[in-house]
Amino acid sequence: MDEPLNLVLFSGTDDKLQAAAVLAAGAAALGRPVNVFLQYWALDAFRTARIGRDHGLAPEAGPEGRAHVVALASAGQQPWAEILRQAKEIGSVDIQACSLSMDLLAIEQSDLDPLVDGVEGVTAFYLSAGAGQIVFV
Amino acid sequence: MDEPLNLVLFSGTDDKLQAAAVLAAGAAALGRPVNVFLQYWALDAFRTARIGRDHGLAPEAGPEGRAHVVALASAGQQPWAEILRQAKEIGSVDIQACSLSMDLLAIEQSDLDPLVDGVEGVTAFYLSAGAGQIVFV
Amino acid sequence: MDEPLNLVLFSGTDDKLQAAAVLAAGAAALGRPVNVFLQYWALDAFRTARIGRDHGLAPEAGPEGRAHVVALASAGQQPWAEILRQAKEIGSVDIQACSLSMDLLAIEQSDLDPLVDGVEGVTAFYLSAGAGQIVFV
Repeated sequence: MDEPLNLVLFSGTDDKLQAAAVLAAGAAALGRPVNVFLQYWALDAFRTARIGRDHGLAPEAGPEGRAHVVALASAGQQPWAEILRQAKEIGSVDIQACSLSMDLLAIEQSDLDPLVDGVEGVTAFYLSAGAGQIVFV
Repeated sequence: MDEPLNLVLFSGTDDKLQAAAVLAAGAAALGRPVNVFLQYWALDAFRTARIGRDHGLAPEAGPEGRAHVVALASAGQQPWAEILRQAKEIGSVDIQACSLSMDLLAIEQSDLDPLVDGVEGVTAFYLSAGAGQIVFV
Repeated sequence: MDEPLNLVLFSGTDDKLQAAAVLAAGAAALGRPVNVFLQYWALDAFRTARIGRDHGLAPEAGPEGRAHVVALASAGQQPWAEILRQAKEIGSVDIQACSLSMDLLAIEQSDLDPLVDGVEGVTAFYLSAGAGQIVFV
Protein backbone atom coordinates (compact mmCIF):
# COMPACT_ATOMS: atom_id res chain seq x y z
CA MET A 1 0.00 0.00 0.00
CA ASP A 2 1.65 3.17 -1.15
CA GLU A 3 -1.54 5.19 -1.05
CA PRO A 4 -1.89 7.51 1.96
CA LEU A 5 -4.48 7.13 4.67
CA ASN A 6 -6.51 10.33 4.84
CA LEU A 7 -8.37 11.38 7.96
CA VAL A 8 -10.88 14.21 7.97
CA LEU A 9 -11.35 15.12 11.62
CA PHE A 10 -14.60 16.93 12.29
CA SER A 11 -15.65 15.89 15.81
CA GLY A 12 -14.10 17.54 18.81
CA THR A 13 -14.69 15.00 21.57
CA ASP A 14 -11.77 13.18 23.15
CA ASP A 15 -13.06 9.70 22.34
CA LYS A 16 -13.26 10.35 18.60
CA LEU A 17 -9.94 12.20 18.59
CA GLN A 18 -8.38 9.26 20.43
CA ALA A 19 -9.83 6.77 17.92
CA ALA A 20 -8.53 8.94 15.07
CA ALA A 21 -5.07 9.21 16.62
CA VAL A 22 -4.90 5.42 16.90
CA LEU A 23 -5.92 5.05 13.25
CA ALA A 24 -3.21 7.56 12.27
CA ALA A 25 -0.53 5.92 14.41
CA GLY A 26 -1.36 2.43 13.13
CA ALA A 27 -1.06 3.52 9.51
CA ALA A 28 2.19 5.37 10.25
CA ALA A 29 3.57 2.26 11.96
CA LEU A 30 2.88 0.35 8.74
CA GLY A 31 4.88 2.93 6.80
CA ARG A 32 1.90 4.54 5.11
CA PRO A 33 1.79 8.31 4.66
CA VAL A 34 -1.03 9.87 6.68
CA ASN A 35 -2.83 13.12 5.86
CA VAL A 36 -5.01 14.70 8.51
CA PHE A 37 -7.45 17.49 7.61
CA LEU A 38 -8.91 19.40 10.57
CA GLN A 39 -12.42 20.84 10.36
CA TYR A 40 -14.86 22.43 12.75
CA TRP A 41 -14.75 21.19 16.36
CA ALA A 42 -11.72 18.99 15.80
CA LEU A 43 -9.80 22.03 14.58
CA ASP A 44 -10.95 23.95 17.63
CA ALA A 45 -9.46 21.22 19.85
CA PHE A 46 -6.00 21.80 18.28
CA ARG A 47 -5.73 25.38 19.60
CA THR A 48 -2.63 25.66 21.78
CA ALA A 49 -4.76 26.99 24.59
CA ARG A 50 -7.21 24.09 24.41
CA ILE A 51 -5.38 20.97 23.22
CA GLY A 52 -4.77 19.76 26.78
CA ARG A 53 -8.32 20.33 27.94
CA ASP A 54 -11.07 17.85 28.61
CA HIS A 55 -13.10 17.91 25.37
CA GLY A 56 -15.89 15.65 26.54
CA LEU A 57 -17.12 12.41 25.02
CA ALA A 58 -19.82 11.33 22.58
CA PRO A 59 -23.27 11.57 24.18
CA GLU A 60 -23.73 7.78 24.30
CA ALA A 61 -20.64 7.35 26.52
CA GLY A 62 -22.68 8.13 29.61
CA PRO A 63 -21.28 8.08 33.13
CA GLU A 64 -20.03 4.49 32.75
CA GLY A 65 -18.09 5.32 29.59
CA ARG A 66 -16.70 8.42 31.22
CA ALA A 67 -15.50 6.35 34.20
CA HIS A 68 -13.66 3.94 31.88
CA VAL A 69 -11.94 6.80 30.04
CA VAL A 70 -10.87 8.44 33.30
CA ALA A 71 -9.58 5.13 34.70
CA LEU A 72 -7.47 4.43 31.62
CA ALA A 73 -6.01 7.94 31.64
CA SER A 74 -5.12 7.51 35.33
CA ALA A 75 -3.43 4.20 34.44
CA GLY A 76 -1.13 6.09 32.08
CA GLN A 77 -2.84 6.00 28.66
CA GLN A 78 -1.37 8.61 26.36
CA PRO A 79 -3.75 11.39 25.33
CA TRP A 80 -4.53 11.71 21.61
CA ALA A 81 -2.25 14.71 21.08
CA GLU A 82 0.69 12.70 22.41
CA ILE A 83 -0.17 9.70 20.20
CA LEU A 84 -0.19 12.00 17.18
CA ARG A 85 3.14 13.51 18.25
CA GLN A 86 4.69 10.05 18.40
CA ALA A 87 3.11 9.07 15.09
CA LYS A 88 4.83 12.06 13.50
CA GLU A 89 8.15 10.84 14.90
CA ILE A 90 7.87 7.34 13.49
CA GLY A 91 6.24 8.13 10.16
CA SER A 92 4.98 10.68 7.70
CA VAL A 93 1.94 12.33 9.28
CA ASP A 94 0.92 15.68 7.83
CA ILE A 95 -1.72 17.66 9.70
CA GLN A 96 -3.47 20.51 7.87
CA ALA A 97 -6.16 22.89 9.08
CA CYS A 98 -9.13 23.43 6.74
CA SER A 99 -9.02 27.06 5.60
CA LEU A 100 -12.82 27.40 5.66
CA SER A 101 -12.96 26.16 9.24
CA MET A 102 -10.16 28.57 10.20
CA ASP A 103 -12.38 31.41 8.95
CA LEU A 104 -15.45 29.99 10.66
CA LEU A 105 -13.77 29.80 14.06
CA ALA A 106 -11.70 32.98 13.57
CA ILE A 107 -8.47 31.08 14.23
CA GLU A 108 -4.99 32.20 13.12
CA GLN A 109 -2.31 29.60 12.50
CA SER A 110 -0.37 31.04 15.44
CA ASP A 111 -3.26 29.96 17.68
CA LEU A 112 -2.69 26.33 16.79
CA ASP A 113 -0.51 23.68 18.41
CA PRO A 114 2.76 22.97 16.54
CA LEU A 115 1.32 19.56 15.64
CA VAL A 116 -0.50 21.40 12.86
CA ASP A 117 1.74 21.74 9.82
CA GLY A 118 -0.26 24.26 7.81
CA VAL A 119 -3.55 25.48 6.42
CA GLU A 120 -5.07 24.33 3.14
CA GLY A 121 -8.34 24.12 1.21
CA VAL A 122 -10.33 21.02 0.43
CA THR A 123 -8.99 20.67 -3.11
CA ALA A 124 -5.41 20.59 -1.81
CA PHE A 125 -6.54 17.90 0.62
CA TYR A 126 -7.95 15.80 -2.24
CA LEU A 127 -4.76 16.17 -4.25
CA SER A 128 -2.71 14.89 -1.30
CA ALA A 129 -5.22 12.11 -0.65
CA GLY A 130 -4.94 10.69 -4.16
CA ALA A 131 -6.75 7.37 -4.36
CA GLY A 132 -6.08 6.56 -0.69
CA GLN A 133 -8.86 5.82 1.74
CA ILE A 134 -10.66 8.80 3.28
CA VAL A 135 -11.98 8.34 6.81
CA PHE A 136 -14.29 11.00 8.27
CA VAL A 137 -14.24 11.00 12.07
CA MET B 1 -8.69 10.22 -10.40
CA ASP B 2 -11.62 8.94 -12.42
CA GLU B 3 -13.20 7.15 -9.47
CA PRO B 4 -16.18 8.93 -7.92
CA LEU B 5 -16.24 10.37 -4.44
CA ASN B 6 -19.09 8.78 -2.53
CA LEU B 7 -20.69 10.45 0.46
CA VAL B 8 -23.10 8.63 2.76
CA LEU B 9 -24.89 11.36 4.69
CA PHE B 10 -26.41 10.12 7.93
CA SER B 11 -26.23 13.07 10.33
CA GLY B 12 -28.80 15.82 10.16
CA THR B 13 -27.04 18.72 11.85
CA ASP B 14 -26.06 21.80 9.85
CA ASP B 15 -22.36 21.60 10.69
CA LYS B 16 -21.96 18.07 9.31
CA LEU B 17 -24.13 18.84 6.29
CA GLN B 18 -21.99 21.93 5.64
CA ALA B 19 -18.78 19.89 5.91
CA ALA B 20 -20.24 17.29 3.55
CA ALA B 21 -21.33 19.94 1.04
CA VAL B 22 -17.81 21.35 1.01
CA LEU B 23 -16.35 17.88 0.41
CA ALA B 24 -18.81 17.36 -2.45
CA ALA B 25 -18.13 20.78 -4.00
CA GLY B 26 -14.37 20.34 -3.77
CA ALA B 27 -14.48 17.00 -5.54
CA ALA B 28 -16.84 18.39 -8.19
CA ALA B 29 -14.47 21.33 -8.74
CA LEU B 30 -11.72 18.82 -9.45
CA GLY B 31 -13.90 17.16 -12.08
CA ARG B 32 -14.64 14.05 -10.07
CA PRO B 33 -18.11 12.52 -10.16
CA VAL B 34 -19.80 12.69 -6.75
CA ASN B 35 -22.47 10.32 -5.46
CA VAL B 36 -24.41 11.28 -2.36
CA PHE B 37 -26.57 8.73 -0.52
CA LEU B 38 -29.00 10.16 2.04
CA GLN B 39 -29.89 8.17 5.13
CA TYR B 40 -31.75 8.83 8.35
CA TRP B 41 -31.55 12.37 9.73
CA ALA B 42 -29.65 13.72 6.75
CA LEU B 43 -32.47 12.52 4.50
CA ASP B 44 -34.98 14.16 6.81
CA ALA B 45 -33.15 17.48 6.37
CA PHE B 46 -33.71 17.32 2.58
CA ARG B 47 -37.51 17.52 2.87
CA THR B 48 -38.72 20.57 0.95
CA ALA B 49 -40.49 21.77 4.05
CA ARG B 50 -37.37 21.50 6.21
CA ILE B 51 -34.30 22.10 4.04
CA GLY B 52 -34.17 25.80 4.96
CA ARG B 53 -34.61 25.24 8.67
CA ASP B 54 -32.08 25.44 11.46
CA HIS B 55 -31.02 21.80 11.96
CA GLY B 56 -28.84 22.36 15.00
CA LEU B 57 -25.18 21.52 15.48
CA ALA B 58 -23.17 18.66 16.95
CA PRO B 59 -23.41 18.63 20.76
CA GLU B 60 -19.75 19.66 21.21
CA ALA B 61 -20.31 22.93 19.32
CA GLY B 62 -21.66 24.55 22.46
CA PRO B 63 -22.73 28.20 22.63
CA GLU B 64 -19.35 29.41 21.34
CA GLY B 65 -19.51 27.19 18.26
CA ARG B 66 -23.09 28.27 17.65
CA ALA B 67 -22.05 31.93 17.81
CA HIS B 68 -19.35 31.34 15.17
CA VAL B 69 -21.80 29.58 12.85
CA VAL B 70 -24.36 32.37 13.22
CA ALA B 71 -21.72 35.05 12.62
CA LEU B 72 -20.48 33.42 9.43
CA ALA B 73 -24.03 32.98 8.11
CA SER B 74 -24.69 36.66 8.83
CA ALA B 75 -21.50 37.52 6.94
CA GLY B 76 -22.96 35.84 3.88
CA GLN B 77 -21.76 32.22 4.00
CA GLN B 78 -23.82 30.03 1.70
CA PRO B 79 -25.89 27.39 3.44
CA TRP B 80 -25.12 23.74 2.62
CA ALA B 81 -28.12 23.32 0.32
CA GLU B 82 -26.91 26.22 -1.79
CA ILE B 83 -23.35 24.84 -1.92
CA LEU B 84 -24.74 21.52 -3.16
CA ARG B 85 -26.87 23.34 -5.76
CA GLN B 86 -23.79 25.11 -7.09
CA ALA B 87 -21.77 21.88 -7.03
CA LYS B 88 -24.43 20.31 -9.26
CA GLU B 89 -24.01 23.19 -11.70
CA ILE B 90 -20.26 22.88 -12.02
CA GLY B 91 -19.94 19.10 -11.93
CA SER B 92 -21.57 15.72 -11.79
CA VAL B 93 -23.20 15.40 -8.37
CA ASP B 94 -25.91 12.76 -8.06
CA ILE B 95 -27.97 12.77 -4.87
CA GLN B 96 -30.00 9.65 -4.03
CA ALA B 97 -32.26 8.93 -1.08
CA CYS B 98 -31.80 5.55 0.63
CA SER B 99 -34.98 3.55 0.07
CA LEU B 100 -34.87 2.00 3.55
CA SER B 101 -34.61 5.43 5.17
CA MET B 102 -37.52 6.65 3.01
CA ASP B 103 -39.64 3.86 4.51
CA LEU B 104 -38.37 4.55 8.01
CA LEU B 105 -39.29 8.22 7.90
CA ALA B 106 -42.45 7.70 5.81
CA ILE B 107 -41.18 10.11 3.14
CA GLU B 108 -42.39 10.19 -0.48
CA GLN B 109 -40.04 11.47 -3.19
CA SER B 110 -42.45 14.37 -3.74
CA ASP B 111 -41.68 15.48 -0.17
CA LEU B 112 -38.02 16.00 -1.05
CA ASP B 113 -36.20 19.05 -2.36
CA PRO B 114 -35.43 18.93 -6.11
CA LEU B 115 -31.73 18.58 -5.18
CA VAL B 116 -32.53 14.90 -4.67
CA ASP B 117 -32.32 13.03 -7.98
CA GLY B 118 -33.94 9.76 -6.99
CA VAL B 119 -34.34 6.88 -4.56
CA GLU B 120 -32.19 3.76 -4.54
CA GLY B 121 -31.07 0.85 -2.37
CA VAL B 122 -27.66 0.30 -0.88
CA THR B 123 -26.55 -2.16 -3.55
CA ALA B 124 -27.25 0.41 -6.29
CA PHE B 125 -25.19 2.88 -4.25
CA TYR B 126 -22.25 0.45 -4.15
CA LEU B 127 -22.46 -0.14 -7.88
CA SER B 128 -22.26 3.61 -8.53
CA ALA B 129 -19.47 4.00 -5.98
CA GLY B 130 -17.22 1.46 -7.67
CA ALA B 131 -13.77 1.56 -6.12
CA GLY B 132 -14.07 5.25 -5.20
CA GLN B 133 -13.65 6.48 -1.67
CA ILE B 134 -16.70 6.22 0.61
CA VAL B 135 -17.05 8.89 3.27
CA PHE B 136 -19.71 8.50 5.97
CA VAL B 137 -20.72 11.81 7.51
CA MET C 1 -14.61 -5.33 -6.87
CA ASP C 2 -12.49 -7.84 -5.01
CA GLU C 3 -11.40 -5.39 -2.36
CA PRO C 4 -13.16 -5.74 1.00
CA LEU C 5 -15.48 -3.17 2.48
CA ASN C 6 -14.12 -2.16 5.88
CA LEU C 7 -16.31 -0.69 8.57
CA VAL C 8 -14.90 0.89 11.72
CA LEU C 9 -17.80 1.06 14.15
CA PHE C 10 -17.31 3.64 16.86
CA SER C 11 -20.78 4.95 17.70
CA GLY C 12 -23.06 2.97 19.96
CA THR C 13 -26.50 4.29 19.05
CA ASP C 14 -29.02 2.03 17.34
CA ASP C 15 -29.50 4.30 14.33
CA LYS C 16 -25.80 4.28 13.38
CA LEU C 17 -25.48 0.57 14.11
CA GLN C 18 -28.51 -0.06 11.90
CA ALA C 19 -27.02 2.05 9.09
CA ALA C 20 -23.73 0.18 9.43
CA ALA C 21 -25.46 -3.21 9.39
CA VAL C 22 -27.24 -2.26 6.17
CA LEU C 23 -23.92 -1.18 4.60
CA ALA C 24 -22.37 -4.51 5.66
CA ALA C 25 -25.31 -6.57 4.40
CA GLY C 26 -25.41 -4.77 1.05
CA ALA C 27 -21.72 -5.37 0.44
CA ALA C 28 -22.06 -9.02 1.48
CA ALA C 29 -25.02 -9.42 -0.90
CA LEU C 30 -22.76 -8.20 -3.71
CA GLY C 31 -20.21 -10.87 -2.81
CA ARG C 32 -17.69 -8.50 -1.29
CA PRO C 33 -15.77 -9.51 1.83
CA VAL C 34 -16.64 -7.27 4.77
CA ASN C 35 -14.40 -6.50 7.75
CA VAL C 36 -15.91 -4.87 10.80
CA PHE C 37 -13.70 -3.36 13.52
CA LEU C 38 -15.45 -2.52 16.79
CA GLN C 39 -14.26 0.42 18.88
CA TYR C 40 -15.52 2.28 21.91
CA TRP C 41 -19.31 2.53 22.30
CA ALA C 42 -20.03 0.28 19.34
CA LEU C 43 -17.95 -2.44 20.96
CA ASP C 44 -19.83 -1.92 24.22
CA ALA C 45 -23.11 -2.54 22.36
CA PHE C 46 -21.87 -6.01 21.29
CA ARG C 47 -21.68 -7.32 24.87
CA THR C 48 -23.94 -10.38 25.18
CA ALA C 49 -25.71 -8.73 28.08
CA ARG C 50 -26.39 -5.53 26.14
CA ILE C 51 -26.77 -6.37 22.45
CA GLY C 52 -30.55 -6.61 22.69
CA ARG C 53 -30.96 -3.38 24.63
CA ASP C 54 -32.21 -0.02 23.48
CA HIS C 55 -29.00 1.90 22.72
CA GLY C 56 -30.62 5.25 22.01
CA LEU C 57 -30.37 7.37 18.88
CA ALA C 58 -28.26 10.27 17.65
CA PRO C 59 -29.22 13.51 19.44
CA GLU C 60 -30.76 15.04 16.29
CA ALA C 61 -33.32 12.21 16.04
CA GLY C 62 -35.56 13.94 18.56
CA PRO C 63 -38.96 12.61 19.60
CA GLU C 64 -40.18 12.48 15.99
CA GLY C 65 -37.23 10.36 14.85
CA ARG C 66 -37.66 8.11 17.87
CA ALA C 67 -41.33 7.59 16.98
CA HIS C 68 -40.39 6.54 13.43
CA VAL C 69 -37.80 4.05 14.69
CA VAL C 70 -40.24 2.55 17.19
CA ALA C 71 -42.98 2.29 14.54
CA LEU C 72 -40.71 0.48 12.08
CA ALA C 73 -39.52 -1.95 14.77
CA SER C 74 -43.14 -2.67 15.67
CA ALA C 75 -43.85 -3.31 11.99
CA GLY C 76 -41.24 -6.06 12.03
CA GLN C 77 -37.96 -4.40 11.00
CA GLN C 78 -34.99 -6.57 11.91
CA PRO C 79 -32.68 -5.11 14.54
CA TRP C 80 -29.08 -4.46 13.48
CA ALA C 81 -27.68 -7.51 15.27
CA GLU C 82 -30.03 -9.74 13.29
CA ILE C 83 -29.12 -8.03 10.00
CA LEU C 84 -25.44 -8.68 10.75
CA ARG C 85 -26.23 -12.32 11.62
CA GLN C 86 -27.92 -12.78 8.26
CA ALA C 87 -25.11 -10.98 6.45
CA LYS C 88 -22.69 -13.50 7.94
CA GLU C 89 -24.86 -16.32 6.55
CA ILE C 90 -24.91 -15.01 3.01
CA GLY C 91 -21.38 -13.71 2.74
CA SER C 92 -17.99 -13.24 4.29
CA VAL C 93 -18.39 -10.83 7.20
CA ASP C 94 -15.62 -10.84 9.79
CA ILE C 95 -16.22 -8.90 13.00
CA GLN C 96 -13.23 -8.04 15.19
CA ALA C 97 -13.05 -6.16 18.46
CA CYS C 98 -10.34 -3.51 18.76
CA SER C 99 -7.88 -4.66 21.42
CA LEU C 100 -7.34 -1.13 22.76
CA SER C 101 -11.07 -0.63 23.20
CA MET C 102 -11.33 -4.02 24.95
CA ASP C 103 -8.81 -2.73 27.49
CA LEU C 104 -10.55 0.63 27.79
CA LEU C 105 -13.91 -0.92 28.57
CA ALA C 106 -12.47 -3.84 30.59
CA ILE C 107 -14.21 -6.37 28.34
CA GLU C 108 -13.19 -10.02 27.93
CA GLN C 109 -13.97 -11.82 24.68
CA SER C 110 -16.31 -14.11 26.64
CA ASP C 111 -18.42 -11.03 27.41
CA LEU C 112 -19.12 -10.50 23.71
CA ASP C 113 -21.91 -11.81 21.52
CA PRO C 114 -20.90 -14.73 19.25
CA LEU C 115 -21.25 -12.36 16.29
CA VAL C 116 -17.76 -11.15 17.23
CA ASP C 117 -15.12 -13.39 15.66
CA GLY C 118 -12.06 -12.21 17.55
CA VAL C 119 -9.91 -9.42 18.92
CA GLU C 120 -7.21 -7.63 16.97
CA GLY C 121 -5.14 -4.44 16.86
CA VAL C 122 -5.41 -1.64 14.38
CA THR C 123 -2.48 -2.80 12.26
CA ALA C 124 -4.13 -6.21 11.76
CA PHE C 125 -7.27 -4.35 10.72
CA TYR C 126 -5.34 -2.38 8.09
CA LEU C 127 -3.75 -5.53 6.73
CA SER C 128 -7.18 -7.12 6.29
CA ALA C 129 -8.57 -3.92 4.80
CA GLY C 130 -5.96 -3.74 2.06
CA ALA C 131 -6.88 -1.05 -0.43
CA GLY C 132 -10.62 -1.45 0.20
CA GLN C 133 -12.80 1.42 1.30
CA ILE C 134 -12.80 2.26 5.00
CA VAL C 135 -16.03 3.65 6.42
CA PHE C 136 -16.05 5.08 9.95
CA VAL C 137 -19.51 5.04 11.52
